[in-house]
Amino acid sequence: MKQNIYDNETFFNGYSKLRKSGVTYNDFVEQPAIKSAISNLHGKNILDLGCGTGQFAKYCVANGASKVVGIDISRNMIEQATKENKHEKIEYMCTSIEDLELPNQKFDVIISSLAIHYIDDYPALIEKVNQLLTTNGEFIFSIEHPIVTARKEMNNWFKDEEGNRLHYALDNYQEEGKREQHWYIDGVVKYHRTFSTIINTLIHNGLKLEQIIEPQSIPEGLEQMPKLINEKRRPSFLVIKSRK
Amino acid sequence: MKQNIYDNETFFNGYSKLRKSGVTYNDFVEQPAIKSAISNLHGKNILDLGCGTGQFAKYCVANGASKVVGIDISRNMIEQATKENKHEKIEYMCTSIEDLELPNQKFDVIISSLAIHYIDDYPALIEKVNQLLTTNGEFIFSIEHPIVTARKEMNNWFKDEEGNRLHYALDNYQEEGKREQHWYIDGVVKYHRTFSTIINTLIHNGLKLEQIIEPQSIPEGLEQMPKLINEKRRPSFLVIKSRK
Repeated sequence: MKQNIYDNETFFNGYSKLRKSGVTYNDFVEQPAIKSAISNLHGKNILDLGCGTGQFAKYCVANGASKVVGIDISRNMIEQATKENKHEKIEYMCTSIEDLELPNQKFDVIISSLAIHYIDDYPALIEKVNQLLTTNGEFIFSIEHPIVTARKEMNNWFKDEEGNRLHYALDNYQEEGKREQHWYIDGVVKYHRTFSTIINTLIHNGLKLEQIIEPQSIPEGLEQMPKLINEKRRPSFLVIKSRK
Repeated sequence: MKQNIYDNETFFNGYSKLRKSGVTYNDFVEQPAIKSAISNLHGKNILDLGCGTGQFAKYCVANGASKVVGIDISRNMIEQATKENKHEKIEYMCTSIEDLELPNQKFDVIISSLAIHYIDDYPALIEKVNQLLTTNGEFIFSIEHPIVTARKEMNNWFKDEEGNRLHYALDNYQEEGKREQHWYIDGVVKYHRTFSTIINTLIHNGLKLEQIIEPQSIPEGLEQMPKLINEKRRPSFLVIKSRK
């Protein structure tokens, strides 16, 4: 089942407000890492899987990309992208990653920021990415770290009575599949996969692993969101760079 | 500092008794995984880093290897290897991995079973391995999983008053370096490294990642050591296969 939480009004309002604040895990942890992994955008033809409101698409154009295709399952997101981050070099499409078809198109860089943990059929996704990449093309994506998605009971910080974080709880690591969570709304579904599944599926499809990042916060983040110090204790995200 | 716990009498006696029982994590979890990752030993020239009593060296010869060099820092281990697993195709050397010098020798397969987490300078080790590998040669090693080595307070199962394992405790993930543990004796030193450090160091040295295994127990293990069911909850080991 394809999930489209971003067209739920409660979720979308909460999420939009958060992202617009500029004070998020994305801004200080995930985005700096994924951007550091991209070699060079100049003259590149780019596909953004789960483009949201188009901020990353705009970033690519500002850094010399010749064309960006941004896709997202959420009509809300695509509408906002078309308003806020419109550009002649960017094409936005409202489609799920699973249903995406771009016959005869190839991309130099395929990126995906925090979307792939919503996808059930990971091997099918990687096969599709591989078909859409040019030879030597880069596939760079971020997901929630397997350490975070593993435990079925997903409230993972183990705290004392005063709310101090004693340690992070891990469990159910080898049981891949659905995890349900409350995030603005009940029943947000993510898919847990082990590190080995994530990596081996890339390799089996002929992609070469080039870099893994388990990012911590940039210094500005530690000032503006002191709780980001906890990224030292366990990583929230995993960024993977591979090449065809 | 090079650690040689295996020449401590208390440690060696405890460890030897354990390994001889044939009912261990090695027998049911780690060894089946590392063996499954090796392509083909026939006619291969093999280096075993941390060979212990030579069981794996003997396995290589039994599976067609043309020559095996087994090295270990412990004189106890090498003495026992020379007694119990002597073979004309096997050469045992008592040296630390750090001090190993084999000028003008190259190996088709370099393996290391649960030794590399005792090594402080991982980048230097990987550089040495790379120099010792033939072109297209395989480097396969197992270590304790970063999930296990991360937390400084290393008794990681969080239990209730009746001793039930509620979850596994993780912490200090990004703080790489020394971890001290009691294992037969006090002060056994291991080195924690993140997943990204482990993988990226291989790639930076020109090795291609081929496979990652986070092994669970083979069925026989679940019968003979029921606690191995907990390997489903978090992996104890990480097996990595790479190629020059």
